[in-house]
Amino acid sequence: MAKITVRSPLAPAGFPDLPLVRGVRFASAAAGVRYSGRTDVMLAVLDAGTSVAGVFTRSATRSAPVLDCQSKLGGVCSDSAAILVNSGNSNAFTGHFGQTSVQEITNAVARITNVPVGRVFTASTGVIGEPLPHDKIIRKLTELNDALDLGGIEDAARAIMTTDTFAKGSGATLDIDGQPVTIAGIAKGSGMIAPDMATMLVYIFTDAHVAQDRLQLLLSELTDKTFNCITVDSDTSTSDSLMLCATGASGVDATDHSEFRQALGNVMLDLAHQVVRDGEGASKFVEIRITGAASDADAKIHGMAIANSPLVKTAIAGEDPNWGRVVMAIGKSGAAADRDRLSIRFGDVLVAENGWVSPDYREEAAAAHMKGQDLSISVDLGLSDGQATVWTCDLTHGYIDINADYRS
Amino acid sequence: MAKITVRSPLAPAGFPDLPLVRGVRFASAAAGVRYSGRTDVMLAVLDAGTSVAGVFTRSATRSAPVLDCQSKLGGVCSDSAAILVNSGNSNAFTGHFGQTSVQEITNAVARITNVPVGRVFTASTGVIGEPLPHDKIIRKLTELNDALDLGGIEDAARAIMTTDTFAKGSGATLDIDGQPVTIAGIAKGSGMIAPDMATMLVYIFTDAHVAQDRLQLLLSELTDKTFNCITVDSDTSTSDSLMLCATGASGVDATDHSEFRQALGNVMLDLAHQVVRDGEGASKFVEIRITGAASDADAKIHGMAIANSPLVKTAIAGEDPNWGRVVMAIGKSGAAADRDRLSIRFGDVLVAENGWVSPDYREEAAAAHMKGQDLSISVDLGLSDGQATVWTCDLTHGYIDINADYRS
Repeated sequence: MAKITVRSPLAPAGFPDLPLVRGVRFASAAAGVRYSGRTDVMLAVLDAGTSVAGVFTRSATRSAPVLDCQSKLGGVCSDSAAILVNSGNSNAFTGHFGQTSVQEITNAVARITNVPVGRVFTASTGVIGEPLPHDKIIRKLTELNDALDLGGIEDAARAIMTTDTFAKGSGATLDIDGQPVTIAGIAKGSGMIAPDMATMLVYIFTDAHVAQDRLQLLLSELTDKTFNCITVDSDTSTSDSLMLCATGASGVDATDHSEFRQALGNVMLDLAHQVVRDGEGASKFVEIRITGAASDADAKIHGMAIANSPLVKTAIAGEDPNWGRVVMAIGKSGAAADRDRLSIRFGDVLVAENGWVSPDYREEAAAAHMKGQDLSISVDLGLSDGQATVWTCDLTHGYIDINADYRS
Repeated sequence: MAKITVRSPLAPAGFPDLPLVRGVRFASAAAGVRYSGRTDVMLAVLDAGTSVAGVFTRSATRSAPVLDCQSKLGGVCSDSAAILVNSGNSNAFTGHFGQTSVQEITNAVARITNVPVGRVFTASTGVIGEPLPHDKIIRKLTELNDALDLGGIEDAARAIMTTDTFAKGSGATLDIDGQPVTIAGIAKGSGMIAPDMATMLVYIFTDAHVAQDRLQLLLSELTDKTFNCITVDSDTSTSDSLMLCATGASGVDATDHSEFRQALGNVMLDLAHQVVRDGEGASKFVEIRITGAASDADAKIHGMAIANSPLVKTAIAGEDPNWGRVVMAIGKSGAAADRDRLSIRFGDVLVAENGWVSPDYREEAAAAHMKGQDLSISVDLGLSDGQATVWTCDLTHGYIDINADYRS
């Protein structure tokens, strides 16, 4: 397998300076699950009083760790908690062996960290269909537990990477009633799925207190506007997991607090954008804004039809302001559209309106926008006030290289 | 724009020897709509007594010719009929000008061929969003009418090509009650859509008589098992049109005749396969068979999820028996699946069963199958008796070349 090691041209300058989140400590280690010469397992331990929420892939073939996490979430519990993530092997489509691995790991983590096993969450990312060598991970747990540190989040972000070309983090500090509250999150993902590897994983921590049921609701709502609005290649992983943990260690209750919601939403959006910016073979980051749709739901369907269209994505790679393909994608989406009410912009350039190319349109203007690295396509349906924004990247030879040619 | 002129490696040896269909005559000409040095318009005139049926793209942004054809079909009518098709310009997303072009052309065809304008059908394929120079087409109508010939179908197939790398035809002759009945069809399409061009067009003719309402029903049913079961890139054209004309000139009534249905279905499947074999950049033809699904509809959803997955298609291009990606596609499809009841075969090689890789699986065996040009992937869901078969091609650098790089 060829290694894709070049940093994405869309990557941020470096890993951000994340604020410390009181109530959670991190450690990472090299367990040798599949990779050598790098860390591949991370442990996070959360103090008692932590609310934990999660959203997961809706795939019908989801992995054993996902099924285990889903069975443990819900209900009110504020015992201490732990998250153990390995890279290199996804423990997906591994039959009953997969469940055994999850049990062995969660039991060992519970024993060593003194966290109830019902509050030990795991995730695995990497090759599908091979048994997870869980013994290698279990042998590292004492070392991990001894190394737990409030400042270990950046190393944790590196330990969970597979074919990611950069580690992804985002954070925020805000004042609530004169008290500082912090949020810090990490993500991995390079496309919905990478060569033989699956998964987007996201872990976000805050020292605010948020009641368990409100935390889950908040997470679900914000996920719909952030991670559920990105696509690299329309393929959905068997292991996607996003967990949000509120330790409460700041002593501040941020339940239903609007500024906190805003700050958390920004962190999630930043992480989601970073995943797109590390999309397989990506050379352009594209924001697609839909307005005037019959409903918000219709707007998202149109946005995703454009974002997932191979013909739109290849046109973007070719720096071609090919609005005919945008019209095609809207037409096929299945959501309401009226050909003669559509208007389409590339950047600020009005391309098409009233069912035809705009009389003032000059292709040079749109072509100039397409040469940039961060692009926008705006479509107004002219029907009602439904809107949505989604994000994607282009489809390039790099995607084919990574996904077809890696055996060469 | 780079011209893609290399014949697809999956193309048949040559254009088939099609039987003559009494009651329909063809002509083609070079009108210079966009291309030079080749024919780009074809006319077919059908004798009185012909039943005409059609199915069209469901795109919400469908072209003016499609809307015109849809308004004319239905109801019982057996006047003479005409079909006029041009390549080079799709007359799609051309506002009110598009409707005017259709009216001008259909009125002129009616006048020159002496066919009622309500029975003149048109289609246009090529660039989107540019006004159709209908005068160029109208100027050729007398020449076309004078050249009408029973044997002109192969030239007609060539006149409607855009970026197709080969002309597509299929036919059958059968005996019904001791009488010969013929079927001949032509198609164009090279992907659901080609560089700046749209459209799959299919025209099928038979000299059998079939009552109008039964013909439409037959066409719709057979389309669901043939053309609606192929995909090149998941993108739907704004102009897809399929018309079936039964002239009745054989004097044989084939209404509800099972052998006729079988023969017609074979012709349609052959043409559909030829479209996939001319898929943009295709190097592999792939049959995907789904069995054991909860319903036939679910089976088709699973089949299309596999056939449209960029990760499955790039794996096929890389000759990689990547069954993990097949599991992923089944999981994301939204149709019912149970991870632990799935079985997957590449060719005859059992790859996965009981939620994991098959104990007897040797990757060399599956890898050997993947080196072929005609591949099959079979999935049994193990749930009930729903089944479907769909066809696709791989996703290669050629697709990116055609759709992203053609401005270079």
